[in-house]
Amino acid sequence: MEKTWSDRFDQTLHPFIEEFNASINFDKELIIQDLKVSLAHAKMLGEEGIISKNEAEAIQVGLNNILVQALNGKFQPSLPDEDIHFAIEKRLISDIGDIGKKLHTGRSRNDQVATDIRIWTRESIVNIENNLINFQKILLKISQDNIHTIIPGYTHLQRAQPISLAHHLLAYIEMLQRDKERLDDLMKRVNISPLGAAALAGTKIPINRESTAKELGFKSIYRNSIDAVSDRDFAVEFISSLSLIMTHLSRLSEEVILWVSDEFHFASLTDRCSTGSSLMPQKKNPDVPELVRGKTGRLYGNLQALLTMIKGLPLSYNKDFQEDKEPLFDSYKTVMDSLTAMSILFEEGLIFNFERLSTAVESDFSNATDLADYLVKKGVPFREAYNVVGAVVKTCLKEGLLLNQLDLAVLQKFHSSFQEDLFHQISPYEVVKSRTSLGGTGFTRVQEQLIFWQDLLL
Amino acid sequence: MEKTWSDRFDQTLHPFIEEFNASINFDKELIIQDLKVSLAHAKMLGEEGIISKNEAEAIQVGLNNILVQALNGKFQPSLPDEDIHFAIEKRLISDIGDIGKKLHTGRSRNDQVATDIRIWTRESIVNIENNLINFQKILLKISQDNIHTIIPGYTHLQRAQPISLAHHLLAYIEMLQRDKERLDDLMKRVNISPLGAAALAGTKIPINRESTAKELGFKSIYRNSIDAVSDRDFAVEFISSLSLIMTHLSRLSEEVILWVSDEFHFASLTDRCSTGSSLMPQKKNPDVPELVRGKTGRLYGNLQALLTMIKGLPLSYNKDFQEDKEPLFDSYKTVMDSLTAMSILFEEGLIFNFERLSTAVESDFSNATDLADYLVKKGVPFREAYNVVGAVVKTCLKEGLLLNQLDLAVLQKFHSSFQEDLFHQISPYEVVKSRTSLGGTGFTRVQEQLIFWQDLLL
Amino acid sequence: MEKTWSDRFDQTLHPFIEEFNASINFDKELIIQDLKVSLAHAKMLGEEGIISKNEAEAIQVGLNNILVQALNGKFQPSLPDEDIHFAIEKRLISDIGDIGKKLHTGRSRNDQVATDIRIWTRESIVNIENNLINFQKILLKISQDNIHTIIPGYTHLQRAQPISLAHHLLAYIEMLQRDKERLDDLMKRVNISPLGAAALAGTKIPINRESTAKELGFKSIYRNSIDAVSDRDFAVEFISSLSLIMTHLSRLSEEVILWVSDEFHFASLTDRCSTGSSLMPQKKNPDVPELVRGKTGRLYGNLQALLTMIKGLPLSYNKDFQEDKEPLFDSYKTVMDSLTAMSILFEEGLIFNFERLSTAVESDFSNATDLADYLVKKGVPFREAYNVVGAVVKTCLKEGLLLNQLDLAVLQKFHSSFQEDLFHQISPYEVVKSRTSLGGTGFTRVQEQLIFWQDLLL
Amino acid sequence: MEKTWSDRFDQTLHPFIEEFNASINFDKELIIQDLKVSLAHAKMLGEEGIISKNEAEAIQVGLNNILVQALNGKFQPSLPDEDIHFAIEKRLISDIGDIGKKLHTGRSRNDQVATDIRIWTRESIVNIENNLINFQKILLKISQDNIHTIIPGYTHLQRAQPISLAHHLLAYIEMLQRDKERLDDLMKRVNISPLGAAALAGTKIPINRESTAKELGFKSIYRNSIDAVSDRDFAVEFISSLSLIMTHLSRLSEEVILWVSDEFHFASLTDRCSTGSSLMPQKKNPDVPELVRGKTGRLYGNLQALLTMIKGLPLSYNKDFQEDKEPLFDSYKTVMDSLTAMSILFEEGLIFNFERLSTAVESDFSNATDLADYLVKKGVPFREAYNVVGAVVKTCLKEGLLLNQLDLAVLQKFHSSFQEDLFHQISPYEVVKSRTSLGGTGFTRVQEQLIFWQDLLL
Repeated sequence: MEKTWSDRFDQTLHPFIEEFNASINFDKELIIQDLKVSLAHAKMLGEEGIISKNEAEAIQVGLNNILVQALNGKFQPSLPDEDIHFAIEKRLISDIGDIGKKLHTGRSRNDQVATDIRIWTRESIVNIENNLINFQKILLKISQDNIHTIIPGYTHLQRAQPISLAHHLLAYIEMLQRDKERLDDLMKRVNISPLGAAALAGTKIPINRESTAKELGFKSIYRNSIDAVSDRDFAVEFISSLSLIMTHLSRLSEEVILWVSDEFHFASLTDRCSTGSSLMPQKKNPDVPELVRGKTGRLYGNLQALLTMIKGLPLSYNKDFQEDKEPLFDSYKTVMDSLTAMSILFEEGLIFNFERLSTAVESDFSNATDLADYLVKKGVPFREAYNVVGAVVKTCLKEGLLLNQLDLAVLQKFHSSFQEDLFHQISPYEVVKSRTSLGGTGFTRVQEQLIFWQDLLL
Repeated sequence: MEKTWSDRFDQTLHPFIEEFNASINFDKELIIQDLKVSLAHAKMLGEEGIISKNEAEAIQVGLNNILVQALNGKFQPSLPDEDIHFAIEKRLISDIGDIGKKLHTGRSRNDQVATDIRIWTRESIVNIENNLINFQKILLKISQDNIHTIIPGYTHLQRAQPISLAHHLLAYIEMLQRDKERLDDLMKRVNISPLGAAALAGTKIPINRESTAKELGFKSIYRNSIDAVSDRDFAVEFISSLSLIMTHLSRLSEEVILWVSDEFHFASLTDRCSTGSSLMPQKKNPDVPELVRGKTGRLYGNLQALLTMIKGLPLSYNKDFQEDKEPLFDSYKTVMDSLTAMSILFEEGLIFNFERLSTAVESDFSNATDLADYLVKKGVPFREAYNVVGAVVKTCLKEGLLLNQLDLAVLQKFHSSFQEDLFHQISPYEVVKSRTSLGGTGFTRVQEQLIFWQDLLL
Repeated sequence: MEKTWSDRFDQTLHPFIEEFNASINFDKELIIQDLKVSLAHAKMLGEEGIISKNEAEAIQVGLNNILVQALNGKFQPSLPDEDIHFAIEKRLISDIGDIGKKLHTGRSRNDQVATDIRIWTRESIVNIENNLINFQKILLKISQDNIHTIIPGYTHLQRAQPISLAHHLLAYIEMLQRDKERLDDLMKRVNISPLGAAALAGTKIPINRESTAKELGFKSIYRNSIDAVSDRDFAVEFISSLSLIMTHLSRLSEEVILWVSDEFHFASLTDRCSTGSSLMPQKKNPDVPELVRGKTGRLYGNLQALLTMIKGLPLSYNKDFQEDKEPLFDSYKTVMDSLTAMSILFEEGLIFNFERLSTAVESDFSNATDLADYLVKKGVPFREAYNVVGAVVKTCLKEGLLLNQLDLAVLQKFHSSFQEDLFHQISPYEVVKSRTSLGGTGFTRVQEQLIFWQDLLL
Repeated sequence: MEKTWSDRFDQTLHPFIEEFNASINFDKELIIQDLKVSLAHAKMLGEEGIISKNEAEAIQVGLNNILVQALNGKFQPSLPDEDIHFAIEKRLISDIGDIGKKLHTGRSRNDQVATDIRIWTRESIVNIENNLINFQKILLKISQDNIHTIIPGYTHLQRAQPISLAHHLLAYIEMLQRDKERLDDLMKRVNISPLGAAALAGTKIPINRESTAKELGFKSIYRNSIDAVSDRDFAVEFISSLSLIMTHLSRLSEEVILWVSDEFHFASLTDRCSTGSSLMPQKKNPDVPELVRGKTGRLYGNLQALLTMIKGLPLSYNKDFQEDKEPLFDSYKTVMDSLTAMSILFEEGLIFNFERLSTAVESDFSNATDLADYLVKKGVPFREAYNVVGAVVKTCLKEGLLLNQLDLAVLQKFHSSFQEDLFHQISPYEVVKSRTSLGGTGFTRVQEQLIFWQDLLL
């Protein structure tokens, strides 16, 4: 098949190499972006008098026709086209004739693809952010309904102190918020136009980079043409930010998997979001959080793939860069889908077992800190109070009792400051309620937080 | 859509979750393997009297029909089938009726997919090994033609000592040989049948694991049923071995990219394996080695993805494991294609510039070691000889001379042992020829190696 | 500070660069290996008449003196020595005079360090293997004591089918066995001598590579000198194998963390292997498995570091290779320590709660498969039996009953083949006992396995 | 050894486990940060009346004494201290008696270490940024001296178009600028105080989080206590940002390694920044860029280690988090040192060979684009002009001529629009000068950029 660049070449490409080289199978994902870039470029060429107004118009009409066909699925580039840029240029020339040969004036595929992929990333960031916000809203709704639902709080997966379920879920809303902020910051580095850098050095054609940048919605333009075609930082930073989103979702997934286990039984799965076994008729499996947890590796892998690909490459463009697209597309799809799946899971897939939660928090030593703090309030130095309570717990364990099952008299043998009021103070409800330091799980604090998020998100 | 496991369930899956969960889009790659596994299982069920001979035969006929359809592209499982196992079971029941419902006796999807993927890996190993051997043969052929082609040998990308081009390429044949040995070793750990482990615990159905293993060509069976369904070591080990292949190819790619640069100019690309630029008419780019180098990251990423996915998972099967397939399939394809592309590159894509190589080795100080060794042979302690030659080199550099351009008299000022015969000994040809330690680049040694490889590979 | 290689140089190294370049801070770990390599080299130089017998002897005496000092901590190389090789050579010359300058005849630091690190790896493999075996023995001992201890078996962390605790632990013994086999295979690729490859091309000095290889315990020698100094495959393969060990330990760690949680409560931690909180007096944390799980990332990271470092490097030696040592040393230490810690944890740190385990397996639907298999034995096609039991389970869940709490009459409404004997067959003990397919959890099968391992390990 | 948390415990820790658990060997790096945090906490406890003013003062005096000792190297915590927090608390109690036991009131090690490490990261960011700026200034200085130094510009490591050396180096200044911006953005997410989150839930002790935050220089406080102790995003983001710095340095390193090769010979190394070989007296190796390129893998590995460590961890604190410190410390040191080493390399280690550069750009086809653009200006559609020049280049290659060596008559056979003035336009100087699109390599554009950076950096 005749190649666009074939006049310097005598022989044709080896057919296997033609396929190996081609990016068309995946970069057709950029078809709309590439057409928009060409439209802006053609318009500018006309405005600057580099080609005539009429020529510019003819090219734009031609490109718009291809755009319509692409949207209707009627423009299907394939292997011999090598890549999306050549596919469109060839189609344009075939449609409108020799005028089409003027489109590529003052540009290169290097700056073209750099522009396409930045527009794609810009759009992807917006979509991810919207999906983050949607999931935050779902978690916020559940939080608002569960301020007073007390659940065990863990460190080391050991019961530590009881907390409000709302407070627990708000921790995830915070993570998702940071994820969003990170993408906002990245946007500043994505929304810069490389168009006009040409192959690497800029061009002598009197193009107007600012007008194409403006037309395409960029905030500014790359200051250095070599950097413009060589920079894949934004791709790394995007996948790195997406990796953190998956890290957060993997943590929440792990918790859901624990919650719906027989042993925890803090929540149950509905039929909408669980599947059965091919062999065991009783099974109801938490596929969604398991898959999300498993897909986390995919993001870490894509991040590594991209970093490795760039490592040690001399300036400016290298063909290795072609390998940037699949990790980007796959990472985006994975995170979008995982956010959607988790949103559905929390909206229709998970039912908390309030009774089980309520008995859970009554039956452990997670109020031991409060017994120590009780002594602290009576003037006992903390480390001493801590040791007293350690001894009390040891005794309880030996005798199979909880703290609130001890007689006051027994407690007073450990420390004379213990009084009757301690029993009230170590009930799970009072324990949670009392944690009123800023950011704490105390109900009033949680309510403040809910109002904060309500204002921000709804 | 009605699911196979739906009788314990009241509601249907959320449509997005159905799609998110489904593996059918990629595990249809395993269709042939899955059918073979079912055929072996059905045969065994009949032989053991678990189902009747007639039933077993009917199932086998049904499965063979599906196999024929699959090979003809007429069996196209799609989303509602969830996965390849259910797709086939449902089709079987639809084709042959209730007897088909007996196929899943005494097994689970867990051991089924574990068996499928091991068969797939086994076949993939063989294909990769054949491709490795093919590439070795191509490199060997070039080596045989270039025993006396002398090229600069490098350490730190600085010219170190001249070497035989054959010797250089033989180093890659060695790497590819290790790659093959590694896959051979892995085969021992792949070629073990998990079939019959059922969900995780084995089964009370009196199946015969040894007969299905034999039928499917496995060397042995998993000793422990839990391990059988939980083990993904072979997948990690496979991708890890493939990563090393890509590491080797990335090194060779880097060298080709250097060789065909204007500056090295040790070799030129033919039109069969290079492409042009969209903007710069003179360009001829080494796309193949660049892409191979870039794709190396893809393997490292897949390795990381898989390791991360398995990390911290409790026994036995977890849905996370579904994420093992895409990295496996992608890694296999990437390495197969990269080996093929590099083979083509060396067979038809690369022409060494002998003249340039010949002048290259005449114009540097890479014979300095030999000047030191000259003194060593005269009894000068090596470290002293080394320092003498260091001083000689410094002088040469100051005066813009090479070692063989110095007068003997000048050399004798540095050390009285220098005699006329040294000039012969420091010519590139003699330098290479003299390196006759075992494994060295001396021509006789290289010839020995070529015979070794000729015997092994051809 | 005067450098060994300084005679070709006028100016001294920038002090910061001197420190940045130096490897002495970590390669002093190789001091013993490097001395052994030099001893073998010196002996050979004498035997081959390259230096005189007396000189060879004097060098060996000198090196042995340094060895004694090193073992006594009296030879402490430091920064100005650049690396361990120069440190020893300089000390030798300082100790025994000009004869010491003959040691470096016919070799280079490139083949020297390649030899050192292979000896180190060889020794490390043996140590890791011994530690693997030790941990296998500990797990085997616990297994032997717990054939009839029934625990819930999981898929998707949902209760699937009851299993023998011995069977569960045997799955880990299998993993550790594969880890060992992998290291055995690697040993073949490690135990090859690169010594005598010199810088990259071999040498004209008539050295005897086979005699040094034999002296140092290598099985064979590198066939190609360039490969010998460029090959770091063994390092990647070693860390890759170690990564799989950590992957296995991370899975077991996750299980221990679950087992000792309040919710599972399958086991308790002793004081020997758990720590407290600084604030919460009741806490007893599973630090060991948490740390082991956390350290898994360290191995994956080291693997990635090494692969990335090698990617795209041209032949032969490049300074980048200096970065191979720290990941190797760190990976080895991490895995050795993790294996030891897990061994101690299982020997003195963990006490199974048999009562809890016993009630656990009585209170779920993990015998549902057996109800289906009951029907299969009566001739009901499996998929039909499966659906019947699915419906039974659904009813049970609605009414808050377990399978064995249903009246036979009720069951018979679902399928007429249910008879009284089914209740016996679905008790956990009978369920486990009946899984007698090869590799299954049936007690007789487990006992067979224990005998197998007893023979192999003890 | 008696542990702070030992009163709930009967037995002592196993000595190996004690060592395995301890973080003191590396977290002593945080000693100053930890003391500052304790000073702020103690001050606040006094101000809020939680302890008396006198007690608060006594504690602060005690802590300041320890601080002085630490700075003088006289406070050396060791293994039995477990971690830096306990080491200091124990020392304080030993120094000032029971009042010291009040220090840990209303806090936990969880929020303490989270605060320490954020302060450390904050300081590290500032140091890295200063080092980035320093390196930018060095590159800027060289750029200012080399506006008119023309070097070959590459794509695919094939000569593409000539460029200004200043323009090339400015591309790196751009990358370093993005690195700095990324750290600036991160600072917003680092400079938030977790202090007062206590173990995970906040505290009932009436602490004042805002006052400690202000005292310690934080911009705000964590809104959610669980998030405060569980969040390690900033660590991932920091190492991710540092990874990109190393990626950039690896690219520049690769270029330097190429430049100083015999084949490129664009620059030479001074003795200040290169080392020799132990065997080859002529060698002068680019160790600095090689090491920097090699160390890139270290960062990627640390990033992977950290991500893997966090993956799938349930809230809130888990011991796995202890593994966050070593990658952080190592990454910081690696990047600081690499920046310093590269700065020294460019300041004193590298001398450009202007003569070689000048002949290099005269002897290739990198002016072919300009020949095409020449036709474009005459109204020839670009794609047609491109093909004409492709054919011209092919002819030149066949005849061994450069473009400027062709007769005008010959050129006119390819296209009649070629005129005499083209020869002027395709000289390297004119080619570079003419690239005056914004961001292009045209001298006037480069000068604009230099002024921009001069204003920003100097």
